[in-house]
Amino acid sequence: MNEQVLEDLINAIKPINEQAAEEATHRLDSLTKPPGSLGKLEDIARQLAGITGEVAADLSKRAVIVMAGDHGVCEEGISAFPAEVTPQMVMNFLSGGAAVNVLARQAGAEVFCVDMGVNADLEHALLIDRKVRKGTANMAREAAMSRKEAISAIVAGVEVVAELVAKGYRMFATGEMGIGNTTASAALCTVLGGMSADEAVGLGTGIAQQRREHKVDVVNRAIALNQPSSTDAVDALAKVGGLEIAGLVGVILGAAVNRCPVVIDGFISSAAALVASVIAPQSVPYMIGSHLSHEQGHRKLLSTIGLSPMIHLDMRLGEGTGAVLGFHFIDAALLIMREMATFESAGVSRE
Amino acid sequence: MNEQVLEDLINAIKPINEQAAEEATHRLDSLTKPPGSLGKLEDIARQLAGITGEVAADLSKRAVIVMAGDHGVCEEGISAFPAEVTPQMVMNFLSGGAAVNVLARQAGAEVFCVDMGVNADLEHALLIDRKVRKGTANMAREAAMSRKEAISAIVAGVEVVAELVAKGYRMFATGEMGIGNTTASAALCTVLGGMSADEAVGLGTGIAQQRREHKVDVVNRAIALNQPSSTDAVDALAKVGGLEIAGLVGVILGAAVNRCPVVIDGFISSAAALVASVIAPQSVPYMIGSHLSHEQGHRKLLSTIGLSPMIHLDMRLGEGTGAVLGFHFIDAALLIMREMATFESAGVSRE
Repeated sequence: MNEQVLEDLINAIKPINEQAAEEATHRLDSLTKPPGSLGKLEDIARQLAGITGEVAADLSKRAVIVMAGDHGVCEEGISAFPAEVTPQMVMNFLSGGAAVNVLARQAGAEVFCVDMGVNADLEHALLIDRKVRKGTANMAREAAMSRKEAISAIVAGVEVVAELVAKGYRMFATGEMGIGNTTASAALCTVLGGMSADEAVGLGTGIAQQRREHKVDVVNRAIALNQPSSTDAVDALAKVGGLEIAGLVGVILGAAVNRCPVVIDGFISSAAALVASVIAPQSVPYMIGSHLSHEQGHRKLLSTIGLSPMIHLDMRLGEGTGAVLGFHFIDAALLIMREMATFESAGVSRE
Repeated sequence: MNEQVLEDLINAIKPINEQAAEEATHRLDSLTKPPGSLGKLEDIARQLAGITGEVAADLSKRAVIVMAGDHGVCEEGISAFPAEVTPQMVMNFLSGGAAVNVLARQAGAEVFCVDMGVNADLEHALLIDRKVRKGTANMAREAAMSRKEAISAIVAGVEVVAELVAKGYRMFATGEMGIGNTTASAALCTVLGGMSADEAVGLGTGIAQQRREHKVDVVNRAIALNQPSSTDAVDALAKVGGLEIAGLVGVILGAAVNRCPVVIDGFISSAAALVASVIAPQSVPYMIGSHLSHEQGHRKLLSTIGLSPMIHLDMRLGEGTGAVLGFHFIDAALLIMREMATFESAGVSRE
């Protein structure tokens, strides 16, 4: 039954509106600047028109969805931080003191924090409780979760987006928290993204080079043990993914179903985007790349999905921090469409 | 006498405040994130502290200074647009309809447009008239301007900044308009930046590849004819530079004298920054790189100065459009310093 829900979801994602995108191009070429000289801002303006069907839609009500989950693979000693930091940071998001809260306020976005699978009992009025299970199993010893759990987590993400769309939110950013989740993301890149574990595994929040080699070994062992499919992305997600990653797959697919742009954050969010792109390739035109993370595998991962990063700040924090910074450029693209003078109105000569 | 003014100016630029920068580092490392994980945002926070002497200064009053000038070298047919576009675009800046106006409003910045040497009689209540002469001479036939004119233009830029500082402005972005000014900038890169003309010359606002080869030839001819000095940057600026470029050199040096951060825009602004860095190397710590332009020489130019671009949008418009987008990241760095929770206050475990 869950499988049917996923199938229906995939079928509900429609192509972007090419006519609106063409109208946007026409408008861009009438503005007082050499054609194409605003580069990717123009690409974004066109893409937003295609997604929303409007030349300059009102996307002022926007949310960053921060999904949290724990990772059994932390037993293998792959992170610089202890697993207890996951619930501690969730409380920090809910109190408004984390980096993503600060940067979201700056960009006029609200933070919604979702417990997809934190290994602790959390209570807070603002927490969205969608816990599928208390953390994944250790993928170096068994499958991280069952296929059914993975699909439940995806569906939960879709439902979170649907509820926010019903409240008027029109644009989303992906964020996450989960000690150990660069390991799961690297495993997904290795299985689905045509990368070796050595290419995909980075230093995460800040491990030493020697521990990175151990992390590569853990990823390779998890893949050898679980034999995840390279074409059935749900199988890969269940065996070597994570609960917050699965939730973000749902956020991305849900945004696409609702014709809302979804801005993809760093390495972990991009691993979720990779999974979404394999499940439903027609969801990619609804995604907007934001920053290029310091994490070594991110450049190739973005390029595999077909996303192009706008922001090069060498950040490696996650939470959605890079994605909410991307909102400023989306606003810039929309303001250009709304406010710039045309060659005609300003009396400026063309080339 | 002019030479003495310049000498005094150079001597008035002091080193940044290392103690304030250290205090910023201390604060950054207490915040709830892995140390260094906000990448260049942390570098900017440290730099701003060093520049201003405060851990999180109020930089809300900010200006983008758009300097305009014409180029005699346009006679050689090196641009896609006719020279009449310079005064037309100046009027567009003054009416608020250009891209930089839109993006400055978004970033809470005011646009100040300065006539440094437009080849037309311009009248507008908002125009700052600092015209040194009506456009440069054609550098392919003679020196673009005299040394005295170049210094006058630099001093004008310094004075524009001083007047704005007196009105409370604390942060600046560089912008420019001048049909033909990528040619002058490429010449400066060739003379002062260790590049060949072929590396330095790009497609500007959008010329064809064949015209680019002609542009390379014009730059080489101008250098062969005028023999600009590779160590005396004022000589190079006078012989193969531009009036708006000289004005921006003054803006950059003036910002440094007044301990204000100055955000450097694209290729032309960076050529001005190169000149400033040769005249006064101690001005570089006051500069903040913004975007990497589509113009082919920009990457090497920034790296020669020692600046690192944050924004990769393939823009090639100038006007200050990339620099004002950079203001969002400067604001982000300051907000992080002011608003993020510490490990102690949030009860989060360290590694």
